[in-house]
Amino acid sequence: MLCTGTAADARRTAERVRRLGAEYLDAGVQASPEMIGTSAATLLYGGSAEAFRRHRPVLELLSTASFVGTAPEAAAVCDLALFGLWYDAQLGLLRALETVAGAGIDVSAFAATATTRLGHVVGSVHDTASEVLERSYPAGPASLAEHLPLLHQLIDLRAGSAIGDGGLASVLENVAALVADGRGGEGLTAAVGVAAGRPVTPPG
Amino acid sequence: MLCTGTAADARRTAERVRRLGAEYLDAGVQASPEMIGTSAATLLYGGSAEAFRRHRPVLELLSTASFVGTAPEAAAVCDLALFGLWYDAQLGLLRALETVAGAGIDVSAFAATATTRLGHVVGSVHDTASEVLERSYPAGPASLAEHLPLLHQLIDLRAGSAIGDGGLASVLENVAALVADGRGGEGLTAAVGVAAGRPVTPPG
Repeated sequence: MLCTGTAADARRTAERVRRLGAEYLDAGVQASPEMIGTSAATLLYGGSAEAFRRHRPVLELLSTASFVGTAPEAAAVCDLALFGLWYDAQLGLLRALETVAGAGIDVSAFAATATTRLGHVVGSVHDTASEVLERSYPAGPASLAEHLPLLHQLIDLRAGSAIGDGGLASVLENVAALVADGRGGEGLTAAVGVAAGRPVTPPG
Repeated sequence: MLCTGTAADARRTAERVRRLGAEYLDAGVQASPEMIGTSAATLLYGGSAEAFRRHRPVLELLSTASFVGTAPEAAAVCDLALFGLWYDAQLGLLRALETVAGAGIDVSAFAATATTRLGHVVGSVHDTASEVLERSYPAGPASLAEHLPLLHQLIDLRAGSAIGDGGLASVLENVAALVADGRGGEGLTAAVGVAAGRPVTPPG
């Protein structure tokens, strides 16, 4: 079954499929319809690694095929997490543009600077992923102690924004707790406090 | 006076400077200390366009000098908006990494896909800025009617995240109101509903 759904949909369907004695392979679509059938499209697969291995030659006809994890919901979660990443970054850009336009700042010139700033986030994705996996939180561009006053200032600046403040209050609370706990020298990744990723079963 | 402060600091200082009969030029620092004195550093200036024009040759010795607006707080707001953009994008990345790690998805492979997805936001910064300036809101990758169910799913997915849900509830509320208002075919930029930017006085 190839469709992008929720994690709960995937788990429910996988259970039904299992009871029928079959294997479940779920997919997340990272492409627009006209890209399907070309290598420019990527479909993310999760569920039965054995089913993926067996049917891979056929799946590769549809798109670049990428196996992301053995949980029935792996593809759905991965797909939704990517949409979420797009929302957070795009909403961040819209908040920044709203703020500078409101202060009479040249929006076009700002866009050039914003491109550079966002480029720093893109350029450090792999380092950030390593920090999450290794639970190692170097300060990077700023320490938690330095983030704290900036987060306070930003929450003030964003009061009354049409699209809210980006949920910074809960981030601030988390950062303040870490600083109070003597971890003010660590970087922002420490605020996730994520459980290190379970390894993915390689697909054969 | 060259330092990064709040908008209120800038307005207060500008008023004091004005009463003393002088002109106020504020700066926002977009560089680390070791970059100052090189063209790799950028300082953002706001306030008196005349003072900027007059002292530009000296200011250019410190860094690339960019004039962002005539309001006393223009540089401070611009600087803080850029920090905010970094937070929203970086927190979005951390949320995504936290989510996929928790679902047993291969975090390193995800990082490659996340880099591509964030690259789309970077690549469309100028188009997004034009939409804000022109108050024109084409659907782009998805319409507001298509965003609505995704935002619901994401809020569910992010329940319990260590760094909150990115304030999506207020975005959802705004998007739902626009859809109810018959604007479901527009794009996400419509949710900002920003006042078009006032033009910046060119620095002479």
